[in-house]
Amino acid sequence: MASLFKQFRVHQVFGANTNVGKTILTTGLVRASAQKGKDVFYLKPVSTGPLTDADDYHITRYTKGFAKSVHAECLFRYDEPVSPHLAVKLKGNITGDSTPPSDDTVVSSIANRIREHAMNSPRYSHMYVETAGGVHSPALSGTSQADCYRPLFLPTILIGDSNLGGISSTISSYESLLLRGYTVDAVLLFHEEYYQNAEYLKPYFEERGIFVSTVERPPSILPDPSENFASTEKYYTSITASGDGLGRVVDHLDTCHEKRLQELESMPRRALDSIWWPFVQHGLVQGEKDVTVIDSAYSDFFSITNKNLTSESVSKDSILQPQFDGSASWWTQTFGHAHPALTHAAARASGRYGHVMFPQAVHLPALKLAERLVKDGPGKGWASRAFISDNGSTGMEVALKMALRAYTVRHGQDLSNDQKKSLGILGLKGSYHGDTIGAMDACEEGVYTCEWHDAKGYWLDPPTVGIKDAEVSIDIPASLASFSQSNTVKAKSLPWVYDVEDRLHTPLARAYGLYIDRALASVQQRGGPKLAALVLEPLLMGAGGMLFVDPLFQRVLIDTVRGRRSGKSSSWSGMPVIFDEVFVGLHRIGIESSGPILGVHPDISVNAKILTGGLLPLAVTLASQSIFEAFLGDSKGEALLHGHSYTAHPIGCEVANETLALVDKLAASEEWAAAKANWAEGEKNSIWSLWDPNFVNAVSKLPQVKEAMAMGSVLSIKVQDDSAGYVSHSAQELFRSLKLVSQEDGQLSTAPGGAPFSIHYRTLGDVAYFMTSLNTKATVIRSVEDKIWKTLANV
Amino acid sequence: MASLFKQFRVHQVFGANTNVGKTILTTGLVRASAQKGKDVFYLKPVSTGPLTDADDYHITRYTKGFAKSVHAECLFRYDEPVSPHLAVKLKGNITGDSTPPSDDTVVSSIANRIREHAMNSPRYSHMYVETAGGVHSPALSGTSQADCYRPLFLPTILIGDSNLGGISSTISSYESLLLRGYTVDAVLLFHEEYYQNAEYLKPYFEERGIFVSTVERPPSILPDPSENFASTEKYYTSITASGDGLGRVVDHLDTCHEKRLQELESMPRRALDSIWWPFVQHGLVQGEKDVTVIDSAYSDFFSITNKNLTSESVSKDSILQPQFDGSASWWTQTFGHAHPALTHAAARASGRYGHVMFPQAVHLPALKLAERLVKDGPGKGWASRAFISDNGSTGMEVALKMALRAYTVRHGQDLSNDQKKSLGILGLKGSYHGDTIGAMDACEEGVYTCEWHDAKGYWLDPPTVGIKDAEVSIDIPASLASFSQSNTVKAKSLPWVYDVEDRLHTPLARAYGLYIDRALASVQQRGGPKLAALVLEPLLMGAGGMLFVDPLFQRVLIDTVRGRRSGKSSSWSGMPVIFDEVFVGLHRIGIESSGPILGVHPDISVNAKILTGGLLPLAVTLASQSIFEAFLGDSKGEALLHGHSYTAHPIGCEVANETLALVDKLAASEEWAAAKANWAEGEKNSIWSLWDPNFVNAVSKLPQVKEAMAMGSVLSIKVQDDSAGYVSHSAQELFRSLKLVSQEDGQLSTAPGGAPFSIHYRTLGDVAYFMTSLNTKATVIRSVEDKIWKTLANV
Repeated sequence: MASLFKQFRVHQVFGANTNVGKTILTTGLVRASAQKGKDVFYLKPVSTGPLTDADDYHITRYTKGFAKSVHAECLFRYDEPVSPHLAVKLKGNITGDSTPPSDDTVVSSIANRIREHAMNSPRYSHMYVETAGGVHSPALSGTSQADCYRPLFLPTILIGDSNLGGISSTISSYESLLLRGYTVDAVLLFHEEYYQNAEYLKPYFEERGIFVSTVERPPSILPDPSENFASTEKYYTSITASGDGLGRVVDHLDTCHEKRLQELESMPRRALDSIWWPFVQHGLVQGEKDVTVIDSAYSDFFSITNKNLTSESVSKDSILQPQFDGSASWWTQTFGHAHPALTHAAARASGRYGHVMFPQAVHLPALKLAERLVKDGPGKGWASRAFISDNGSTGMEVALKMALRAYTVRHGQDLSNDQKKSLGILGLKGSYHGDTIGAMDACEEGVYTCEWHDAKGYWLDPPTVGIKDAEVSIDIPASLASFSQSNTVKAKSLPWVYDVEDRLHTPLARAYGLYIDRALASVQQRGGPKLAALVLEPLLMGAGGMLFVDPLFQRVLIDTVRGRRSGKSSSWSGMPVIFDEVFVGLHRIGIESSGPILGVHPDISVNAKILTGGLLPLAVTLASQSIFEAFLGDSKGEALLHGHSYTAHPIGCEVANETLALVDKLAASEEWAAAKANWAEGEKNSIWSLWDPNFVNAVSKLPQVKEAMAMGSVLSIKVQDDSAGYVSHSAQELFRSLKLVSQEDGQLSTAPGGAPFSIHYRTLGDVAYFMTSLNTKATVIRSVEDKIWKTLANV
Repeated sequence: MASLFKQFRVHQVFGANTNVGKTILTTGLVRASAQKGKDVFYLKPVSTGPLTDADDYHITRYTKGFAKSVHAECLFRYDEPVSPHLAVKLKGNITGDSTPPSDDTVVSSIANRIREHAMNSPRYSHMYVETAGGVHSPALSGTSQADCYRPLFLPTILIGDSNLGGISSTISSYESLLLRGYTVDAVLLFHEEYYQNAEYLKPYFEERGIFVSTVERPPSILPDPSENFASTEKYYTSITASGDGLGRVVDHLDTCHEKRLQELESMPRRALDSIWWPFVQHGLVQGEKDVTVIDSAYSDFFSITNKNLTSESVSKDSILQPQFDGSASWWTQTFGHAHPALTHAAARASGRYGHVMFPQAVHLPALKLAERLVKDGPGKGWASRAFISDNGSTGMEVALKMALRAYTVRHGQDLSNDQKKSLGILGLKGSYHGDTIGAMDACEEGVYTCEWHDAKGYWLDPPTVGIKDAEVSIDIPASLASFSQSNTVKAKSLPWVYDVEDRLHTPLARAYGLYIDRALASVQQRGGPKLAALVLEPLLMGAGGMLFVDPLFQRVLIDTVRGRRSGKSSSWSGMPVIFDEVFVGLHRIGIESSGPILGVHPDISVNAKILTGGLLPLAVTLASQSIFEAFLGDSKGEALLHGHSYTAHPIGCEVANETLALVDKLAASEEWAAAKANWAEGEKNSIWSLWDPNFVNAVSKLPQVKEAMAMGSVLSIKVQDDSAGYVSHSAQELFRSLKLVSQEDGQLSTAPGGAPFSIHYRTLGDVAYFMTSLNTKATVIRSVEDKIWKTLANV
């Protein structure tokens, strides 16, 4: 991940093409830095071509006059003048290994060199990392360099192309860097009288806030070596003359570095002065130390400013450190941050459409998304329509409007106006369906609700599944215990718990049914609200405290409210059933949707979060044909009059389509197969997790842990705490040390680049949860498990 | 705009660089098409370099054997072998004009040639448009070709680079095309044994669904002209051999063309089968003809499928036609569709962050946005904090939660729990604050509301401003008329109406004050709700029917509820005042915010829509320090517990920052100065419009028009209608012919490319409105005014 040092400025040099003067201009920069009295480090990660032509050979030759202050090295050298991935194939690695190093190894090697030099530099120094070929020339593994080096997120110098066609290759290269979020501090290129590329590129880049400098072309190569050396030396002297040329560029790069440091330093104060955060009690934010500055993000890690710098360490340690995004950025991350395929999808749709009007219109991204979800996704087998909105909360409001109308159309003649306004939701205690007021009204009153909250409905006590002392049990709430004759039901295994069909005729199922019947009858007797929709977060209730509901209970509840459906009818019966799969859907908990486990389909369901791969907001509400038909008529007033300006924005839809395609690949991957195998018992493996079952079991045995549970990418640890609830700080306290960077005793960490990392996590009162992306590497998860284990074991 | 013909396939050829074989491979494609018996058209928009090297000269030479079926031409020729914009400077145009043609002219010329050839072709034909240099090589005007030709949105062939560094330049060029939304149908490049670029690029592009084909390199140029001709001819024969090589590419391009046509044809049916549209009564959608297929969009125009093709015209007319986006895609468009700067902003943020967690964290895009809005935007002078959410409706829910809490904290001890739950909003009849249930509860019951709607508050009748018979008047509602002693107040001029300060002591202001006092007293007497917040859409209420409220009335109302503020206090007084500027804010109606016109600041305000330039959803709720402090405490339960997963998503924030910077430039532009001058009267010109005042006045004189009005980018025309209201179809009927393409009698239209266009517009019952982007060209607006005029005059 990104590193940044107060006393050590590092830039990477990318070329707009081969033969644009990258080596010459980098050599010039090194000399210009040395001339300013700096120690200068030159690193060529990969060099190809004969040794005498090699960049680091060249730089050694032409910085001899500054031998004391210039340190040049190459990490991997190949003698074929082709792109690095091909050089590996053609000639093998002349520096050692015969198999090419992985991207991780290359990145860690570079990061290590930077760290070492930075720590050992007695004073402010400069470093230049020169890449090979063009921005997308393949690295040793075959990955494009722009992608391969992205974890390091080094500030960038782009060497422009002064040849015919060079305007195009320079701008395209810049756009490729931009697509990966790189900050380009300067564009340098040769001055060329005839093509005048610089005259075009200077205003182009300056309009975008990027510094451009031109340098005279080098002299022609002379046949006599010593004459050639002299002429080249003279050239370097001229282009690095202080006050002008590359000397001015070096000053500019120093200014950029200084600004970067100042900006990062100023951000906490400025944030405290202008931002109102969601779900944050600003009165408890004690000051700048409590603000996390996220400079960039990549894969499963944030790059954040180091909060533990002391006055001694500040000149040596990196200002930036990796932090594992342990909440998957509020349950959104799917492939980690800044995945190039999602950026491509967003750019593609933005370039083709921007946003376009949706009512009675159609564009390909929205159409493909609707078809995918309805016919070949969570809606398969029951849904007929997709209604698109902006986020999970609005998606749920749409779902509620659908259900209320469907109920009213069928039963309207029996309802007074007041009854229509107070139609109730049947749900479970601990439900949460989003933050807008209508979605909140489908839940009980609680700490999240606002003045206008009006709990419209009735909520049952759900039994929940958990692991304690490595044993699976179902926790039966008090109100239900009289029916089940027990407060806890031991389960054979997790797969057994999730084999709902197999459990339908157990005594527990009958107890559930009795409890539900009795509760519903009592609502009616007490003159409670007319219940018009069953709203469930299937299997796992998130914001309510990571409650893993016994799926059997939800199944019995659905069967109960639906009663006996009439023969062939696919119409909703009893009351419309809404699945709020905003959090659990699309493989967050290892399955695309919960229907197959529960053995029943909803009439309405909502997807969001993973839907757009963790990039930007979008939600889809799916509905069955019988729900859709409740809104059909010949008056506009009867239509579903809900729509946001950016409904079905093409960027969101295109990113969603890309996400679903990538998730499909993951679902068929060896990584998932291996994780599933860990959790399988015999034939049964409907539920599984990326977390290790042995780790989960071990954690569940600890005295300070009340219960643990894992499904898909979610790990939940409930701590022993007498004062539970959302406002409890017990879990927050127990895991506090995870927010500090733990030293790895010289070992490389599993973060890209290998720097030690901290862990960002979120708690819900007495529950701490940890959530990965769907493609987080097993090695990363193992190292996170290690850190969690050490934190718990130290208590 | 894009054109697409059933019997005429057109592809543009872009090169990954100069000297990659673009001319040779295009010539090969032309020959391969001819060999398949097609008529082939070759167009080189701009040719540079000596005539004997010119591409069209080359193609003429090497397609002589197919002279009957191959037609080659060049539109602009310059004899300097440099990029076109430079060729213009260096040598002037040898084909005629001395000033270089504009992008519009170049694009129209190409579009015209395509249309002419397509219409005159007796059978299925092919056309290849060969660009110059690389994708970003400048066109004649200096605009990059990838940008310049974007309005045509031609399917694309990318000629890859087989030289050293060519992997990088090919992928970067592809990414530049992708950023503009182009569909790349094929990548062609020379086979090169040593660098093996094709071996790398084939899987790269195939993974992205793009066809790749390699072709042998051409033979070396021979000194003897006839030998050279023979050897080149032989080469062309070999690479175009049917069944292989370019013959297979041509088949593939035909398949792509066929698929494109089939896809467009299938989309209406598929949309009708899977999509549930917002605000659409599906029962009134009669079939495929009622579905607008948007294939792409650019600037102010959609590219939609032509609904008026007959069985005769289908083989000659373009399947795609431009349609003016006359609702600014539901009030969102700011710089037109697919503006490259916004795509860049989105890509940049996606590449750097993806999305990252926001609570207690900060990233640059969000910080800059908050600071800009609070300190140097609509919040200037009063706001202290920015709270970010996902869309206008959620932004308003956040505003309501803020106001309700602030009121409750101050007056809580006097309120029962029931009173807190039923705290009321003071507003105006016709208000609309978004589609979520809580935002709807801040409005009266109406056609938009759902079963759960509970109108919480009291709404006053507002006087409105309009132009009839070229005179400005204020329409006084009946309930207010007894105070003003008149139903209509003639106004001197529009600037006079909007000079609120000047009108504060008029009799009308006193009448407004009396009416408001009396109404508020009566709410209290009748035991109405405790009013806790004043919520206004300042100046213009959008969804309620484009009601231009008399600003004096809103000012008097605010002054009344606030009473006399205590000396220096900046705390809210009376009740918090919320400005819902979701629609009107950020220059939609010509001013950044309405505070300066009303002469007062709100305590809370909301921006969305234009905020993100018409690309994707985001909203910001601004609050004063005294509102913020109502949530401060030492318990998390007292915080503002509202937040969406994608809160402050970096893409949205970065796009918003780019938008605000671009709007600042527009605000200082000559175009706006000219429009403002049209509307100024003496010193006064606080309000103005991009629409022509003479046009608005003329429309207001028509008998079928009840009233017209324009502000900023908004034009509103209220039609005479006895049955007004949202469900009325009168305006929809009156303007129906705008949805048809009107032929321009051989004239080029103002749509890019010059094809005749239709107009998409939206109505609100008896009101039709037309909305431009903030940068829509005056020439385009004039042509839209013409069409509106003709439609009205024909009635």
